[in-house]
Amino acid sequence: MVISCRNSISEFWAESYSAKLWVGCRVSKKRQKMDYFYGPGRNHLFVPGPVNIPEEVIRAMNRNNEDYRAPPIPALTKNLLEDVKKIFKSTSGTPFIIPTTGTGAWESALTNTLSPRDRIVSFLIGQFSLLWIDQQQRLNFDVDVIESEWGQGANLDVLASKLAADSAHTIKAVCIVHNETATGVTNNLATVRKILDHYQHPALFLVDGVSSICALDFRMDEWGIDVALTGSQKALSMPTGMGIVCASPKALEASQTAKSIRVFFDWKDYLKFYKLGTYWPYTPSIQLLYGLRTALDLIFLEGLDNVIARHSRLGKATRLAVEAWGLKNCTQKEEWYSDTVTAVLVPPYIDSSAIVKRGWQRYNLSLGLGLNKVAGKVFRIGHLGNLNELQLLGCLAGVEMVLKDVGYPVKLGSGVAAACAFLQNTTPLIASRI
Amino acid sequence: MVISCRNSISEFWAESYSAKLWVGCRVSKKRQKMDYFYGPGRNHLFVPGPVNIPEEVIRAMNRNNEDYRAPPIPALTKNLLEDVKKIFKSTSGTPFIIPTTGTGAWESALTNTLSPRDRIVSFLIGQFSLLWIDQQQRLNFDVDVIESEWGQGANLDVLASKLAADSAHTIKAVCIVHNETATGVTNNLATVRKILDHYQHPALFLVDGVSSICALDFRMDEWGIDVALTGSQKALSMPTGMGIVCASPKALEASQTAKSIRVFFDWKDYLKFYKLGTYWPYTPSIQLLYGLRTALDLIFLEGLDNVIARHSRLGKATRLAVEAWGLKNCTQKEEWYSDTVTAVLVPPYIDSSAIVKRGWQRYNLSLGLGLNKVAGKVFRIGHLGNLNELQLLGCLAGVEMVLKDVGYPVKLGSGVAAACAFLQNTTPLIASRI
Amino acid sequence: MVISCRNSISEFWAESYSAKLWVGCRVSKKRQKMDYFYGPGRNHLFVPGPVNIPEEVIRAMNRNNEDYRAPPIPALTKNLLEDVKKIFKSTSGTPFIIPTTGTGAWESALTNTLSPRDRIVSFLIGQFSLLWIDQQQRLNFDVDVIESEWGQGANLDVLASKLAADSAHTIKAVCIVHNETATGVTNNLATVRKILDHYQHPALFLVDGVSSICALDFRMDEWGIDVALTGSQKALSMPTGMGIVCASPKALEASQTAKSIRVFFDWKDYLKFYKLGTYWPYTPSIQLLYGLRTALDLIFLEGLDNVIARHSRLGKATRLAVEAWGLKNCTQKEEWYSDTVTAVLVPPYIDSSAIVKRGWQRYNLSLGLGLNKVAGKVFRIGHLGNLNELQLLGCLAGVEMVLKDVGYPVKLGSGVAAACAFLQNTTPLIASRI
Amino acid sequence: MVISCRNSISEFWAESYSAKLWVGCRVSKKRQKMDYFYGPGRNHLFVPGPVNIPEEVIRAMNRNNEDYRAPPIPALTKNLLEDVKKIFKSTSGTPFIIPTTGTGAWESALTNTLSPRDRIVSFLIGQFSLLWIDQQQRLNFDVDVIESEWGQGANLDVLASKLAADSAHTIKAVCIVHNETATGVTNNLATVRKILDHYQHPALFLVDGVSSICALDFRMDEWGIDVALTGSQKALSMPTGMGIVCASPKALEASQTAKSIRVFFDWKDYLKFYKLGTYWPYTPSIQLLYGLRTALDLIFLEGLDNVIARHSRLGKATRLAVEAWGLKNCTQKEEWYSDTVTAVLVPPYIDSSAIVKRGWQRYNLSLGLGLNKVAGKVFRIGHLGNLNELQLLGCLAGVEMVLKDVGYPVKLGSGVAAACAFLQNTTPLIASRI
Repeated sequence: MVISCRNSISEFWAESYSAKLWVGCRVSKKRQKMDYFYGPGRNHLFVPGPVNIPEEVIRAMNRNNEDYRAPPIPALTKNLLEDVKKIFKSTSGTPFIIPTTGTGAWESALTNTLSPRDRIVSFLIGQFSLLWIDQQQRLNFDVDVIESEWGQGANLDVLASKLAADSAHTIKAVCIVHNETATGVTNNLATVRKILDHYQHPALFLVDGVSSICALDFRMDEWGIDVALTGSQKALSMPTGMGIVCASPKALEASQTAKSIRVFFDWKDYLKFYKLGTYWPYTPSIQLLYGLRTALDLIFLEGLDNVIARHSRLGKATRLAVEAWGLKNCTQKEEWYSDTVTAVLVPPYIDSSAIVKRGWQRYNLSLGLGLNKVAGKVFRIGHLGNLNELQLLGCLAGVEMVLKDVGYPVKLGSGVAAACAFLQNTTPLIASRI
Repeated sequence: MVISCRNSISEFWAESYSAKLWVGCRVSKKRQKMDYFYGPGRNHLFVPGPVNIPEEVIRAMNRNNEDYRAPPIPALTKNLLEDVKKIFKSTSGTPFIIPTTGTGAWESALTNTLSPRDRIVSFLIGQFSLLWIDQQQRLNFDVDVIESEWGQGANLDVLASKLAADSAHTIKAVCIVHNETATGVTNNLATVRKILDHYQHPALFLVDGVSSICALDFRMDEWGIDVALTGSQKALSMPTGMGIVCASPKALEASQTAKSIRVFFDWKDYLKFYKLGTYWPYTPSIQLLYGLRTALDLIFLEGLDNVIARHSRLGKATRLAVEAWGLKNCTQKEEWYSDTVTAVLVPPYIDSSAIVKRGWQRYNLSLGLGLNKVAGKVFRIGHLGNLNELQLLGCLAGVEMVLKDVGYPVKLGSGVAAACAFLQNTTPLIASRI
Repeated sequence: MVISCRNSISEFWAESYSAKLWVGCRVSKKRQKMDYFYGPGRNHLFVPGPVNIPEEVIRAMNRNNEDYRAPPIPALTKNLLEDVKKIFKSTSGTPFIIPTTGTGAWESALTNTLSPRDRIVSFLIGQFSLLWIDQQQRLNFDVDVIESEWGQGANLDVLASKLAADSAHTIKAVCIVHNETATGVTNNLATVRKILDHYQHPALFLVDGVSSICALDFRMDEWGIDVALTGSQKALSMPTGMGIVCASPKALEASQTAKSIRVFFDWKDYLKFYKLGTYWPYTPSIQLLYGLRTALDLIFLEGLDNVIARHSRLGKATRLAVEAWGLKNCTQKEEWYSDTVTAVLVPPYIDSSAIVKRGWQRYNLSLGLGLNKVAGKVFRIGHLGNLNELQLLGCLAGVEMVLKDVGYPVKLGSGVAAACAFLQNTTPLIASRI
Repeated sequence: MVISCRNSISEFWAESYSAKLWVGCRVSKKRQKMDYFYGPGRNHLFVPGPVNIPEEVIRAMNRNNEDYRAPPIPALTKNLLEDVKKIFKSTSGTPFIIPTTGTGAWESALTNTLSPRDRIVSFLIGQFSLLWIDQQQRLNFDVDVIESEWGQGANLDVLASKLAADSAHTIKAVCIVHNETATGVTNNLATVRKILDHYQHPALFLVDGVSSICALDFRMDEWGIDVALTGSQKALSMPTGMGIVCASPKALEASQTAKSIRVFFDWKDYLKFYKLGTYWPYTPSIQLLYGLRTALDLIFLEGLDNVIARHSRLGKATRLAVEAWGLKNCTQKEEWYSDTVTAVLVPPYIDSSAIVKRGWQRYNLSLGLGLNKVAGKVFRIGHLGNLNELQLLGCLAGVEMVLKDVGYPVKLGSGVAAACAFLQNTTPLIASRI
């Protein structure tokens, strides 16, 4: 694939973000003055991020500022840095909790480990991998793009060929999005590692885990990942505002010599303050630190593996419903099925945006739009983060009614029935209630 | 019916409140220290009170105390007293916002309008009307109890006979629970008024609107109700802590001569402070006042009649699901169907408590137990307050799985399908999103 | 003193609660719509209740409702009932956490232990003891009022004479307000017990600890108190909404035979639900239960005796400031000085209401008005609850400026200097920061 | 001044951030588990950022996530972008609300307007200007550093010479920190503009307004500032997490050709989404958007000029107190006095860190440490953001006691008296309370 010029790419996908898609959904002037009426009852938030925040986390963040140089915040931070490694399943990594978004976390991963004009390999399989590639190019790396049809996973055969051909080790990094949020495709990271090992290739292994970490099986150390990253508003179930990055010893070493210019995102500043014991090169969000403490506590209370099993259960239930509706998953093969987001293909006579819009207007249901190449063709159900069975079933019931609303001949109840049949057999009792 | 002695009544129903019903649901020591793990995702709260609080109300209450004698709180209160009358559909009434529960509001209604040994008529149709009668007797009134089978509404024919026979006007008040929360029975208040008018009987008309006001059609002035009352944790969708009482001019007049002893609940103290312009004879909850302001704002934004229509829609949807499951409503006739709570009869081979317990343990679903005479025989779905279609559908899906869990041969998806078929045709677009 | 008729008493003091006192303090219409502007910075809340709520407690209460019959709330309650006894320094008492205010707690204490026309002794030393006496009379007890000049403590010599003369034990209870909030007078409860013991008098010993418990030295068991009570919005530093009552075994026994009519406030209902293990005869405020849990945790973390010592320190500092300003304490003798509230006498040419009003209007400072007999003559500084040295010093500086504003020739800084000199020598390091 | 190498600079100042300064201030293990005890009463937060958040803003942020692509968030954002320009006093500027800190805002300002090796002039007058210069160098600009003694303002004479000598216009930008937070020095921006105009020099005028905007007189358009920036946790009184940047048309034009590499901070992406009407190139913090809405509402309710006047009043009061204590302001001339932070010089026999530590340990008072060259020599009182007179006076009383604690012979009450004398004459009534 040729991605010749940065601007052209972004223009090409821009329209799937246009406000025009929401024409007809009035937001009165009042909204701008805080008293917009959200409709009765709860918003059903099933976009694949930002996701539902547990009440415990909202509560923990409900606080005034405090001096971040006095002892409590460093003590809290020290503990967070230790614990946050667990969600990466890493003991040898060094974590950075950066006041930024996933996009910033991407930038941190790249600029700290690579130098301008470094050759890297990157997979284009959907909108978010595309955006990362766009960033890689704008940061002046030489990107070998391996493109797949949207709905397919990363083409690892091409990766293998490229590595095989690169005995000179000109490839400095392999960049991959673990879970492509636009198409609901999960890539196989263990295989990437195997290929790298097979060719004994020293390239850094950089992974976007934004919609996977804390939700899908993720093993930083075991899979030899060099930089992994996520954002707080995804499976951690917090507000946006933290880009969380974990660097392997090899990545840290690379950062000593990487020549990409960076200041705000520079790991060196963090490392200096780690040594000083005050931890922060600039002001962190006090509220998010307490929020992260609580988010991690909740994950550990449930058990990280139980959290992952729950996502697997909810993902499966969603796919069973889609099947029962007679619709197709955008993801082309089972091996790529994502347990955090399902992109549902709609028949050609339906505009998927109308589904999203109708769900929001009538049922206070927030679904994800199709983006870029799949705009109008898919709608997305995000099922990640702090979520349980009945929340999902309410969403699925809502989708059914919306499908009917927009003219798709769904049998009402069919998807819910399929999901229930599976969930009723697999949902464990809540551990604290036995 | 003979209710001979207060103690015996209460002992008789006590066991349906026993903690023994929850044996097997462990709550660890930890719980007592604030870090009990509630399970992933949201609690699905479908007990018929306390109900879900909108985020807007939780937010409004998130505040420090303030001096309730300085001008802001009186200004706020003045406004609240004016607005709270609207939920009673009364212009001539005088409202009292009392720091108490529904039980306290009952006591306020009775002691301010009646004197010891006054003869009153009261209907016994379920646990909450029973508890009110228990209170009436303990407050030393002479209670003519008109009992119906649980599942039936108030027997208004007997009322008519009693009034017809009472040309001496020895009956001082007719007390009725608008919506019996234990059996899901809504009484017809308009007919009560018609009967009173027919016999030109001057008895006061006292109404418990705890699970009806702000949810069911309620017209204090039009129906000539003398005292109506509700609690903040019901359809107002707030925390517990406010007993809201509205008194007609006739009730206020009666309070001038009523000899029942009362101090905390005495309207006279309120009326004095209303005149002083400071409104409160003792300290109100600052937080609840702001909560009430927001709760009313939300109801008025949606439109009180739209709120009532929404309850009607959700009530109907629930009943359709129950029917689809092949189960019976505890309420025996359609005319008594309640749009705020549905009591579902289970087959004799199932203990309804097991359903409630299982829902809570496995799906984080909170349903209502059967109480007293219907203990073990019904479980209850509360569908009142700040609630929407998809929340209810999630609950219904959960009930289906629970029914299957406990051995009832439900067809999974059947209830949801029936509810969806109705809701998909009747749910309006959210007004602020068109 | 003759208090001949209930109405007359209350009319007589009513004007000190009139909104007229605040004329000139505009509260715009906007206020009623939630967007009243409170002025920049924090409100300095120094009324003697409701008091400042710690952020931790506000946070703990920031939550949705939940089913209070499912296991978590009973587990929480059980623990609270055990722990709340500690603030009374009682091991043998039985606590009741009632959804009401201090006025309701008073009513609960009286109606559960006494019968109509019982003779009781009660001390009138200020507005709050007056209000309790008003309640006692309206509840139909025969009240022997022992009056003191406002500013003096309870006249215990008269109590002694009355008990000495009562060999027939016609006196059923001695009622006393531990700390009279209107005049800043603390009564000596240990001496009351000594007198009762001296005459071997079996009268019940009922104590209003509303502005003392959790702040002043209070020893329910050691002092043989039969019923003690407080409200959540006082030294517990919570919102209003909980009347907390503790009953001795003797009081519980008395409740078996007490003939005063009560239902909402009846201990019997609580005791029944204690046995059932579900604890609540009617719906509690979920939010306040979690708030109480946190409030108690904070008190125990600081140490109850340290909390009391802190109040003693802040009380002393306030009195030193008053002295430095050349003003007199309303409290006439040191033995009665209150560590929770200081009533400051102003010169005759100043209206104390003007001080309160000006503090609020100019400095966002909330002080207490003078009430009833001392209306216009005193203003009150509440220094109870979750408060520290610098908060108090800010208040004292504010009072100095207000005094100057209203024409009193105070030397600016004088009161703060006197308070600082004492505090700088006595304030301990914060235990968790050493 | 020669700042030869990046690393050396930062090492040199690092120790003033070391946790060693806090030795002896224990933070128990418990702290790390959320239940650290903060000591009774309120934290007195007088570091110059992050500052106190008004309860209204905390409340507004107390919410779940929502879909940021659905209409409400774009509508809210549109309105915010319009309103946020007002705090810059700009009508022609284009604002960017970036999920980052002040450091990120700096980077955004520089990389969007300049190209590598561009020559810029920058003033070094304290730690924060030093850090910005450090960033400028690391971003590969050619920095002409104009250094002043710490405590003095920017040397504008040297600027004039440089501009005079630069007829070739090799200087591409003049970078200045409006208010140096480390020394409490406010630079005169109007004069900078005059000098630029005098020499008709086209250099961009980039201003760090982090501790000035919303607190000090700031006029972006009138002073011809090209990029101005602040952070949410400063005078806006919010949590950390928003870098707010405003670009003049000239700056926007420069951004078309600026060759510095940027992606996360690239204005181009924002501008594209502005056009699309969805506003966000990546996920914003929903909570901070609502917080900003409320923060701006509060500022506009008070009136921006009143906010600035309040800071002026509090700044003056603080300086009067410092003088009364017999201490010197680190700021050497009145023309540079800062109304947002006062750096107080301590006598050589006292370590200023001991003051900060003691204030925190004993009085729950948070003051700012001296940094870098003035480490140990000054402590800082931040008096910016949502703050009022009595809060400041409590702080000043606390500082007096701390000074005495550490052995400085202060006359207790002297500073408070001086501040009160000024404030009592100048504090206006709260507008909403007249």
